Amino acid sequence: MTERTSVAIVGAGPAGLLLAHLLDIAGIDSIVIDQRSREEIETTIRAGILEQGTVEVLTDTGASDRVRTVGQRHDGIELRFDGEGHRIDFAATVGRGVWLYPQHEVLKDLIAARLAAGQDLRLGVTADSVEGVDTDRPRVIATGSDGERIEIEADVVVGADGSRSVVRRALGGSSSGHFREYPFAWFGVLCEAPPSSEELIYSSSPEGFALISQRSATVQRMYFQCDPEEDPERFSERQLWDILQARVPGTTLKEGHIFQRDVLRFRSFVAHELRRGRAVLVGDAAHTVPPTGAKGMNLAVADVVLLAEALRALVREKGERLLDAYPERALSRIWKAQHFSWWMTSMLHTSPEATDFDRRRQVGELRSVVESEHGRAYLAEAYTGWPLAR
Amino acid sequence: MTERTSVAIVGAGPAGLLLAHLLDIAGIDSIVIDQRSREEIETTIRAGILEQGTVEVLTDTGASDRVRTVGQRHDGIELRFDGEGHRIDFAATVGRGVWLYPQHEVLKDLIAARLAAGQDLRLGVTADSVEGVDTDRPRVIATGSDGERIEIEADVVVGADGSRSVVRRALGGSSSGHFREYPFAWFGVLCEAPPSSEELIYSSSPEGFALISQRSATVQRMYFQCDPEEDPERFSERQLWDILQARVPGTTLKEGHIFQRDVLRFRSFVAHELRRGRAVLVGDAAHTVPPTGAKGMNLAVADVVLLAEALRALVREKGERLLDAYPERALSRIWKAQHFSWWMTSMLHTSPEATDFDRRRQVGELRSVVESEHGRAYLAEAYTGWPLAR
Repeated sequence: MTERTSVAIVGAGPAGLLLAHLLDIAGIDSIVIDQRSREEIETTIRAGILEQGTVEVLTDTGASDRVRTVGQRHDGIELRFDGEGHRIDFAATVGRGVWLYPQHEVLKDLIAARLAAGQDLRLGVTADSVEGVDTDRPRVIATGSDGERIEIEADVVVGADGSRSVVRRALGGSSSGHFREYPFAWFGVLCEAPPSSEELIYSSSPEGFALISQRSATVQRMYFQCDPEEDPERFSERQLWDILQARVPGTTLKEGHIFQRDVLRFRSFVAHELRRGRAVLVGDAAHTVPPTGAKGMNLAVADVVLLAEALRALVREKGERLLDAYPERALSRIWKAQHFSWWMTSMLHTSPEATDFDRRRQVGELRSVVESEHGRAYLAEAYTGWPLAR
Repeated sequence: MTERTSVAIVGAGPAGLLLAHLLDIAGIDSIVIDQRSREEIETTIRAGILEQGTVEVLTDTGASDRVRTVGQRHDGIELRFDGEGHRIDFAATVGRGVWLYPQHEVLKDLIAARLAAGQDLRLGVTADSVEGVDTDRPRVIATGSDGERIEIEADVVVGADGSRSVVRRALGGSSSGHFREYPFAWFGVLCEAPPSSEELIYSSSPEGFALISQRSATVQRMYFQCDPEEDPERFSERQLWDILQARVPGTTLKEGHIFQRDVLRFRSFVAHELRRGRAVLVGDAAHTVPPTGAKGMNLAVADVVLLAEALRALVREKGERLLDAYPERALSRIWKAQHFSWWMTSMLHTSPEATDFDRRRQVGELRSVVESEHGRAYLAEAYTGWPLAR
């Protein structure tokens, strides 16, 4: 049986759900499918820093006001190196800020809003393939939770299905794109403890990078640079605290029970094609950034804002011009964000291949940035996010 | 026979001659030796961009006023990529500028001023070694142009003798330091032609980097990225112009007879020690930067300004505190300049090892800089020079 909608969205992450939300506001119907269950989606721990523009989209469109009430505005970060902290003051340099509000909270808000609005949201449904992308009736072929075959025909199929995107395969070439790997990863922990600092601390130390982040008054998120092959279970809690403490000289971390640990791989990826005919990619399906600088979800939101405008023009006015322009417009921001993520990563991490020259140049770079009002503003502008095309 | 002076300076380049000049103003005598002849020194073609602070030192101390009359103030540069030019406006972003005034002109001014002031300047004299650096009577052992042995005893010996410094050897370890090589070089040409542009054009193109620089109304200096092993004689003049033209798409270069060509190696180097006892290094003896961003001579001037102050305190007040502080104070700027030179190099050149991801990220970086007033100001601030410690 073939079902029919205007926009078939594969993936119920922030990109897919926000797109459905923005389309709904424009009076355009969509079906969202995702192989995961609601619980799985709502409990996966991911990034937690929202650019000001992302927050404005979420609140201005009524998708979430909890971001402003539960989330915390941060007006700066600290860069720490050579044993000293240097604040990058976002408010003073660029008059903008970011919000600490975990991605799974965004997802809870978006799912609740979508369900309340009567969204056709199919969880536990796995996309198998996309067909007919070169026609104006592309189809998603999927399998339901009971094994039944589902076929969704739409004006456009959107791949918001993450880095292992099924939709991307339909664009030609299997997952082909521009790619970069890094010789390190992040060891992430969640712990029961009060915050060790009010704002995020990005610390570059001879032992390697560490990020002291927050989650709530009682739970904290911290990371330290590790080998990509590191076994998360290898360390005792005591060892983990010792590693973290050693990498943030000058601050005594408030310790507590570490109840979750994971290793995050570092990858940079940009798909060769963001669109073919009536299939389009957004978010992680189109690109992956390393986590330093927190651009992942924010970049997905920027894609979606551009694509929603293009789909409004397509569905309501039968105009393809904005859809044609979508890849170039999106890539313009994507490559800047790729650069920013690479820059924050390479400026703060210790590469196993780095020579002594490289390490001293790195400190020279960090000093160049923090000692210059222009350097601080340049970093703050990118961190808080370039303006969205709204 | 042993001669006696307060400061023995090895090397009659910009660093050595400016130091002698600043010491003379403070009433401190010095002897400068250099193995080269005056003609050799005054005709070696080198860098030609002076930071505003460098120009202020030269003019405020009476070392050169030709820099302001013959030299040309530049209030910006152009970054060109993706076939489009983007001006970095120094005046508008940081209110400072640079001067186009070739290094050999600076040297002519300094030599003339030194000779007029009765400076003991010994050309054609080769330093062989430095002895007694751990005593307060260090000595330079040298050979005169007729093969005679010359011994100069001083309170301090200064190595201003370039990247193959003899003085550096006396600091322990043979020429040891932090080092980086680059997989490319610059092919430089001098040609008889009118200027192709009023300001410098730094062009990043798929064929590789090119720099369109100026020298005078009738002679121009241009460079293009090449293999470090390139044979300067391999190309016809026609081929050189074709290479240059292809790398500056959008501008038609004004061609003319190419009368000089050379290959400039790219190296980054910082000596492990800038001082041992009564021996001190300045300029290229202490550090080498790749030419992109024109920091070499300017960094030498910054060293000399710091060291002159330290030597005044030592010779006139017998205080070693500023001499003790010299390495750390100088290194603070040196590593920022090393970073800036590396940054301009890596942002604009095509590395033979670069992947397609790297090249697109590079364009993302260039766009991040030129599209941001903060990015432009951050670059302009470093290019025109951080304030000197005067």
